[in-house]
Amino acid sequence: MKLFSYWRSSAAFRVRIALNLKNLTHEVIPVDLLKQGGEQHLPSYSAKNPQDLVPVLEHGSHVLRQSLAIIEFLEEAHPTPALLPKNIEERAWVRALSMDIACDIHPLNNLRVMKYLHKKLKLSDDQKSSWAKHWLELGLAGVEKTLSTQARQGKFCLGDEVSMADVCLIPQIMNAKASNCDLSKFTKIQQVFDECMKLPAFIQASWEAQIDYPNKS
Amino acid sequence: MKLFSYWRSSAAFRVRIALNLKNLTHEVIPVDLLKQGGEQHLPSYSAKNPQDLVPVLEHGSHVLRQSLAIIEFLEEAHPTPALLPKNIEERAWVRALSMDIACDIHPLNNLRVMKYLHKKLKLSDDQKSSWAKHWLELGLAGVEKTLSTQARQGKFCLGDEVSMADVCLIPQIMNAKASNCDLSKFTKIQQVFDECMKLPAFIQASWEAQIDYPNKS
Repeated sequence: MKLFSYWRSSAAFRVRIALNLKNLTHEVIPVDLLKQGGEQHLPSYSAKNPQDLVPVLEHGSHVLRQSLAIIEFLEEAHPTPALLPKNIEERAWVRALSMDIACDIHPLNNLRVMKYLHKKLKLSDDQKSSWAKHWLELGLAGVEKTLSTQARQGKFCLGDEVSMADVCLIPQIMNAKASNCDLSKFTKIQQVFDECMKLPAFIQASWEAQIDYPNKS
Repeated sequence: MKLFSYWRSSAAFRVRIALNLKNLTHEVIPVDLLKQGGEQHLPSYSAKNPQDLVPVLEHGSHVLRQSLAIIEFLEEAHPTPALLPKNIEERAWVRALSMDIACDIHPLNNLRVMKYLHKKLKLSDDQKSSWAKHWLELGLAGVEKTLSTQARQGKFCLGDEVSMADVCLIPQIMNAKASNCDLSKFTKIQQVFDECMKLPAFIQASWEAQIDYPNKS
């Protein structure tokens, strides 16, 4: 399998974690989103993903897109270890928390949106920073409340097993830290983050561990 | 089952279609997003969904959130008629197209974002309209290309069976029409829209058919 990835993309980061958790051998192909013109807009890449976004997973002749769709595919093709619980109400809870992040936090702060705010709307750095923090802190406050009211609390988002929700949460927290969000009030989120970051699957998927991380020696 | 819905919410619209397609009896409880203060922010609603967003599906003692997580739950609890194909690569394709809409188009143009552009950033009506059209037309161009390059083309997004992708596409097209997007170049999307809007499940889920649609006699 080949994963088309960018070190800082939260969406690519999710798939990197999932591939690691499932012990699936894969080659990472960097797509430089910041290069002049953007490698995601090259015809060869756009043919794989008409939305010009990372990640893409190539698997034989199949070209898979959208991080959560890729993770659901990996779950169906390689069920063990599971990233979704067996109980269908718990599956819905894990998917909803994953989508709180993948639908309602991340897309508002990704590279193309920040570019539009800068280039088209001519926002100042302060205005852009306020925008990013607004959606991050609003969304994470909801995530914190959701985690804190879950009956089956444990080391991770749901109990003591890593799930797709953790796979989505950790890249978003990395992004929030880089955006100087105040995370001190999110105690349950911080606890989950600390537990996940003890695991090699998360560590090896991190920004600094990527071959396209800048200034990597 | 009780569906907490708002007539114009694309996310609630998706779940209304899915419930209709699966012939599941449900009561619609309107949540007035535009009422002074917003009914989605009432403590009684926020307790169901800490993200203060519609929809929510109450099912016995279970409270389900996020439209695609709800639809996946309905698919697992009530598999027939299916909204996902059997083949796992095709399932991934349907989920990816659904998420192109639910993650990368809709969240950029929903009510809370348009409010931020208006109240916090003081954008003009023209700037807000350009923002909405930019993300709609960019995203739908990708959807059109994805549909046009699918080998198994038919009446709907994938072949001749309605899937979760159609359930996501139609509310987004309603929204695009209301935003005066030029859809004339999206011939495949228009064809799918016309086919879906022949089906009672889609018609009965539409804006005008909702009990909270304004000026309904």
